[in-house]
Amino acid sequence: MPVVCMGIMKATNHQFRLAARPLGVPSRTDWKYVEEPVPEPGDGEFLVEILYLSLDPAMRGWMREGKSYLPPVAIGDVMRASAAGRVIASRHPRFAAGDHVTGAFGVQEYAISNGKGARVVDTRVAPLPAHLGTLGAPGMTAYFGLLDIGKPVPGDTVVVSGAAGAVGTVVGQIAKIKECRAIGIAGGPEKCRFLVEELGFDAAIDYKGEDVKPALKKHCPDGIDVYFDNVGGDILDAALTQLDRHARVIISGAISQYNNTTPVKGPSNYLQLLVNRASMTGMVVFDYADRYDEAAREMTGWLAAGRLKSREQVVRGGLEMFPDALLKLFNGENTGKLVLAVSEAA
Amino acid sequence: MPVVCMGIMKATNHQFRLAARPLGVPSRTDWKYVEEPVPEPGDGEFLVEILYLSLDPAMRGWMREGKSYLPPVAIGDVMRASAAGRVIASRHPRFAAGDHVTGAFGVQEYAISNGKGARVVDTRVAPLPAHLGTLGAPGMTAYFGLLDIGKPVPGDTVVVSGAAGAVGTVVGQIAKIKECRAIGIAGGPEKCRFLVEELGFDAAIDYKGEDVKPALKKHCPDGIDVYFDNVGGDILDAALTQLDRHARVIISGAISQYNNTTPVKGPSNYLQLLVNRASMTGMVVFDYADRYDEAAREMTGWLAAGRLKSREQVVRGGLEMFPDALLKLFNGENTGKLVLAVSEAA
Repeated sequence: MPVVCMGIMKATNHQFRLAARPLGVPSRTDWKYVEEPVPEPGDGEFLVEILYLSLDPAMRGWMREGKSYLPPVAIGDVMRASAAGRVIASRHPRFAAGDHVTGAFGVQEYAISNGKGARVVDTRVAPLPAHLGTLGAPGMTAYFGLLDIGKPVPGDTVVVSGAAGAVGTVVGQIAKIKECRAIGIAGGPEKCRFLVEELGFDAAIDYKGEDVKPALKKHCPDGIDVYFDNVGGDILDAALTQLDRHARVIISGAISQYNNTTPVKGPSNYLQLLVNRASMTGMVVFDYADRYDEAAREMTGWLAAGRLKSREQVVRGGLEMFPDALLKLFNGENTGKLVLAVSEAA
Repeated sequence: MPVVCMGIMKATNHQFRLAARPLGVPSRTDWKYVEEPVPEPGDGEFLVEILYLSLDPAMRGWMREGKSYLPPVAIGDVMRASAAGRVIASRHPRFAAGDHVTGAFGVQEYAISNGKGARVVDTRVAPLPAHLGTLGAPGMTAYFGLLDIGKPVPGDTVVVSGAAGAVGTVVGQIAKIKECRAIGIAGGPEKCRFLVEELGFDAAIDYKGEDVKPALKKHCPDGIDVYFDNVGGDILDAALTQLDRHARVIISGAISQYNNTTPVKGPSNYLQLLVNRASMTGMVVFDYADRYDEAAREMTGWLAAGRLKSREQVVRGGLEMFPDALLKLFNGENTGKLVLAVSEAA
């Protein structure tokens, strides 16, 4: 198959490689910014120009040593990241130059892919960043976590933490679509206003401005039926005290704990699972990969019908902004899906 | 209906009433030992002479203030307890003088019951104390917790903590009956020997003599499929590190935490639920009350066939021994079901 090139390639590919395993919040010295020639795709491969990089809380976990659901990024390797871009050269039968694609392309400007985990996406149904958010891993996490594990029924009270984030915004909106009450927990009055006024949550709790436990009690007078946790720590503990009988807790993440230099704070109130005959279940979205299309179809329909709103926050400035952009996740600066525009073409 | 009396009634009924909410380990001053006349059953009631009192870790929880799956025992009330005895007078259509019965009769020598939660038991299939253990709430907890929530399949590795206790001994044996590997965690070499040599566990880990985490790693080379937790604390945390993909954790109790004067230690390693797509589910045995007969029938068959062994430890000395006998649960003195023989007739 001939190599088809679109446009003129940059001579160099910039990358962020992991230089050290961070202690606490990742700092600039944990990264090595390197320059390499743009590689050429081999047989069965394609070359993608990365336009948007997905910034995900899970990245902090991938930087950590030790067994997890994915092996850690090795010191010296290009940092793992989901990204969206445009195929600029292909020797792969399923990907053609000009296709928009998403995949685990890494923190760099150009990537070679053999197609594994990569998908062609349609920018007519949603702009490219939304394919990293609502129609990407965060949206899939919300969809399968809430529906498959949470199993909400109409009238249920669904509470989600990290509610203004890429996953949380989708969880609450799907809860509403499924005729549940949706209560979000987020940091700051602006995010809370956004959840209620723009996304249609029934209520939002500003954990920075009010005590979460009494606020949950107020907004969930019959208890919580489904609690979707993205944050861990004290907020998880507060939610556990307000569970209804047979509640389902989904453990999707624990962003409050990712930069700990001390051991993770376990949920002191876990015995509320016993008292309320409730369950707490962990999920990793990759397990649902063979059902992504089904979810994407349904969510695309909701987007088109205006029942689901996708919110992205784009950081500009190119790849070099990556270390700073990543930190926005952990200091609560982002609303919706945080992405970094890597190329000027983005 | 005439009152039928068997034997000569004692003039007095001794009781332990809750005098104060304990801080830490319950002490003698938390109890009030009182003497009352033996009451007479009204219409639709029966009088039972208590022969054996069940000593259960859950009792510590019932002494605590605050919402739980049952209301707390009020200060001044007779302490709640399961017990087994003999009906000595009845004006209830389903209970006749001479019947052996179990029920929530309280820490006393005689009780009046309206039949709610009481069951006539057959002492030909198992001695009376076994109806408080293997065929009582602990056995039901083991049966429904393991089978309904744990859902073990042949070849699974089942780990149980508090393995030498009333629940744990049954969990491990049912796991073996269901063709699983059964690993027990218990305190001391004697209990461990008992589990392996007398009850047929595949291995037992002495948490007082060895590090639990490496021992679990050794005995569960493919990870834990079902973890049945009776103890909480560090042992729960160690077990979480060894879960297999899609493991089921059953939260049945947390005896290590019941006498805490500090907050409960939450499981620091709860994010292993995420890594392993595992679930942690709390249970309260009372929810299965309408299926007790089904479980009792099956377990009676296993007892008769010698596939299930019931072990009880009887403390003698009468009701007065109650405060001391209860503490045996918390300092690890008991093997199997701990009961107090209340009457000399026991």
